[in-house]
Amino acid sequence: ASTVALDAKEQKEEKVETGSAGGVAAGGGGSDEKAIVSYWGISPGKVTKEDGSEWRWSCFRPWETYKANVEIDLEKHHVPVTFLDKVALWTVKSLRYPTDLFFQRRYGCRAMMLETVAAVPGMVGGMLLHFKSLRRFEHSGGWIKALLEEAENERMHLMTFMEVAKPKWYERALVFAVQGVFFNAYFLGYLVSPKFAHRVTGYLEEEAIHSYTEFLKELDEGRIENVPAPAIAVDYWRLPQDATLRDVVVVVRADEAHHRDVNHFASDIHYQGHELKESPAPLGYH
Amino acid sequence: ASTVALDAKEQKEEKVETGSAGGVAAGGGGSDEKAIVSYWGISPGKVTKEDGSEWRWSCFRPWETYKANVEIDLEKHHVPVTFLDKVALWTVKSLRYPTDLFFQRRYGCRAMMLETVAAVPGMVGGMLLHFKSLRRFEHSGGWIKALLEEAENERMHLMTFMEVAKPKWYERALVFAVQGVFFNAYFLGYLVSPKFAHRVTGYLEEEAIHSYTEFLKELDEGRIENVPAPAIAVDYWRLPQDATLRDVVVVVRADEAHHRDVNHFASDIHYQGHELKESPAPLGYH
Ligand SMILES: [Fe+2]
Ligand SMILES: [Fe+2]
Ligand SMILES: [Fe+2]
Ligand SMILES: [Fe+2]
Repeated sequence: ASTVALDAKEQKEEKVETGSAGGVAAGGGGSDEKAIVSYWGISPGKVTKEDGSEWRWSCFRPWETYKANVEIDLEKHHVPVTFLDKVALWTVKSLRYPTDLFFQRRYGCRAMMLETVAAVPGMVGGMLLHFKSLRRFEHSGGWIKALLEEAENERMHLMTFMEVAKPKWYERALVFAVQGVFFNAYFLGYLVSPKFAHRVTGYLEEEAIHSYTEFLKELDEGRIENVPAPAIAVDYWRLPQDATLRDVVVVVRADEAHHRDVNHFASDIHYQGHELKESPAPLGYH
Repeated sequence: ASTVALDAKEQKEEKVETGSAGGVAAGGGGSDEKAIVSYWGISPGKVTKEDGSEWRWSCFRPWETYKANVEIDLEKHHVPVTFLDKVALWTVKSLRYPTDLFFQRRYGCRAMMLETVAAVPGMVGGMLLHFKSLRRFEHSGGWIKALLEEAENERMHLMTFMEVAKPKWYERALVFAVQGVFFNAYFLGYLVSPKFAHRVTGYLEEEAIHSYTEFLKELDEGRIENVPAPAIAVDYWRLPQDATLRDVVVVVRADEAHHRDVNHFASDIHYQGHELKESPAPLGYH
């Protein structure tokens, strides 16, 4: 059963066939109407919500949605003990001044930009643990997945906030530059000292909590309009249909508190002379 | 609620407390009895199987297990059309000779070693799409997750085969070197031409199918002993309790056929001038 790329005419025929046989239609919603043809038997499948209506997101699925635990302690702070802890805290604090200066009180925009950075550590850590697991023929204790889940959760934060605040061209350029620097720095940092890297991320999450608390103040004082929650957020966090931006910020902040716990915990494991794989990872810790 | 690292005495007290309060015990199964202490409120949670017995794996969870679709067409082959396709096929074919030479007919060992390589493309592709999604403020269409799922599935292949064939020191050294080269090559390759990268992976998977078919021949002709399936494989692919190595090789081969489809399909999407995100990803395509 060999297959080769079809020419235009055959493609057209295939398009009709695949209506029932598992073809994949372009789902970009752009102006390009051309269907993507496949004989690889791959069908994305019909996904429905609990109420039977069609699931409209392809970037996440119903079984990845959850109700955030907003009861989590938002004040918890890891008091730096070792020199390395202090360097980690100082690193994060010193990054805050330029951020404050740049964004001032535009918290929607700030949230969006910060999420492009927040999604880096989980992906880098998860990837490095994956390659370590392969090299050493060792189980990961679930930490690869836990860190990748964190990265995905942060990406969902970004997908949410970009519905509320559209990035300007110079902000896109800034994200490009910051990602290049931060990816490489975190990659090297994690290779050299995972305990330091997780501590930095823990403190970053503490700052994120602070930032979202300020965001809520602005909303409550009416300086930022409490618009309806984006549809993607309603589906992802299982929010009520009439949820607002305020509700979204509350659940996102709860997520950050969970990331804080996971990363400080991961750092603690290293500090206690263990490897992450020795302690089962907190999968699905929301 | 500030927390600092506890000293040894306090740690001991904490250890008792956390028995019920969500502390995490070392799960490495090594000789080190010291529990890992946490005040981060993180508990891995009790996970049970369908029959109520305790789930014993922390590197994967019951809801990630599946029954492989062994009906899949194993013969499908993408006949190279363009020059790039031919380079991709030639690259893979030329890698086969040294592999054949090195492993000869030791298919168990070969499978184990090849899985350390096979788990690279999905992770690299998923990571690069993740960072692209962040940089461009764009949805991924589920492809990040689909590629990361592939990487995880390959890692499970490795975790399975390493139960059957223990790597020797020079094989470990080889894996180290090959991973270093292949990670960087695939990273750069994916950045320059994702359609080429996915095509290479598609052909790699075709070779993997071939290799597992040879493995089955050796088993059927009695040259490799058909030992009982490793416990991890029985749980991951929902195999019967009396499953054998042969059953494992059959489901792994089916997985490779699915990876082949996904990667050739991804390459086709690029060839047709689209981006992956325009076509919903085949999540959970096993
Ligand atoms: Fe976030
Ligand atoms: Fe976070
Ligand atoms: Fe594999
Ligand atoms: Fe594969």
